[in-house]
Amino acid sequence: MPHHIVLLGAVTLLGVLEQAYFALQVIAARRKYSVSPPSTSGPPEFDRIFRAQVNCTEYFPMFIAVLWLAGIFFHQGTASVCGILYLLARYNYFQGYSASPKERLGPMYLNAAILWLLIGLSTAGILHELLSHYLGLKII
Amino acid sequence: MPHHIVLLGAVTLLGVLEQAYFALQVIAARRKYSVSPPSTSGPPEFDRIFRAQVNCTEYFPMFIAVLWLAGIFFHQGTASVCGILYLLARYNYFQGYSASPKERLGPMYLNAAILWLLIGLSTAGILHELLSHYLGLKII
Amino acid sequence: MPHHIVLLGAVTLLGVLEQAYFALQVIAARRKYSVSPPSTSGPPEFDRIFRAQVNCTEYFPMFIAVLWLAGIFFHQGTASVCGILYLLARYNYFQGYSASPKERLGPMYLNAAILWLLIGLSTAGILHELLSHYLGLKII
Repeated sequence: MPHHIVLLGAVTLLGVLEQAYFALQVIAARRKYSVSPPSTSGPPEFDRIFRAQVNCTEYFPMFIAVLWLAGIFFHQGTASVCGILYLLARYNYFQGYSASPKERLGPMYLNAAILWLLIGLSTAGILHELLSHYLGLKII
Repeated sequence: MPHHIVLLGAVTLLGVLEQAYFALQVIAARRKYSVSPPSTSGPPEFDRIFRAQVNCTEYFPMFIAVLWLAGIFFHQGTASVCGILYLLARYNYFQGYSASPKERLGPMYLNAAILWLLIGLSTAGILHELLSHYLGLKII
Repeated sequence: MPHHIVLLGAVTLLGVLEQAYFALQVIAARRKYSVSPPSTSGPPEFDRIFRAQVNCTEYFPMFIAVLWLAGIFFHQGTASVCGILYLLARYNYFQGYSASPKERLGPMYLNAAILWLLIGLSTAGILHELLSHYLGLKII
């Protein structure tokens, strides 16, 4: 079984590493702009980095969920390629948001598009499984 | 194997779609009440919608975790029905909180009750598996 | 298959229970320091408990992800022991942060160390599976 999910595992691991990188950037920004915990607001530069990390963190569980659903019910390779593109767009989102709220928009739309694509692949795969198992329909 | 988890997959997918809906409501509220990122506070109407989304997002990983544990170790169908009820209660929570902090309370207690039920089912299923595999006890 | 993941399931369940405990502590602190939703700031005592819970919640999905990757691709027992240690350190982190920002530091470093250990075990297991499946290399 492991080889049916190893690519999904690899993308998940890269996702965790990216989240760890974002968390370290917030720690560095706390030092740079003297924002001590438990405070979470400071100069605009800090606020942007902080919000960028929070936003990536909010979407992380949704991303992991549809990555695995698309990978298990549709196709592992396709889902994993989408996953890598999502993580790249997330990196650009974080860098863009750190510079200005406007520069986060491009990668944000790309992230949303990839997430919807993974949702679409998951839906197709799950519907196919539901129809074939419960109704005996074989579409493909 | 896929048919042993397809209902859990379907409920997870619905959960991701619900989270996406909540995120879109926050974006709409940001426009309506002129709260530009990275700011996260505005008039009370905005604050309630924002907090409703944050709360749903905080509980999402816990919900998905016990949905799958209950579905794998106890019973897929039972866990999936609980999952659907949880998502409905979450929708009511979000709508209620958008109206007033008080109106979030009913669905909040229902959400908590379903979560504890899923925790109970997971505990029963995992204990049964631990006892039967490591101690050779067959309860059922 | 269930016995290959039952320890991971048990640790995940304990993690959900711990998160529920943290959430209940925040509700108790809201009452004690009269901080009504949707507000999220109050006296420093409340702010610390609130931030401690948010921080644990942010890391929860990453922790669950590497717990399962390390457990599936490396070794279930080793990953589960790391998982239990992580949950204990999280408890100490929460208690420490509730007392003062400084007292959160020790458990925070321990949490980070265990997370990096789980990342290392996941990386080893996934690389091994990738190399053996796609390149036919058998390292062990």
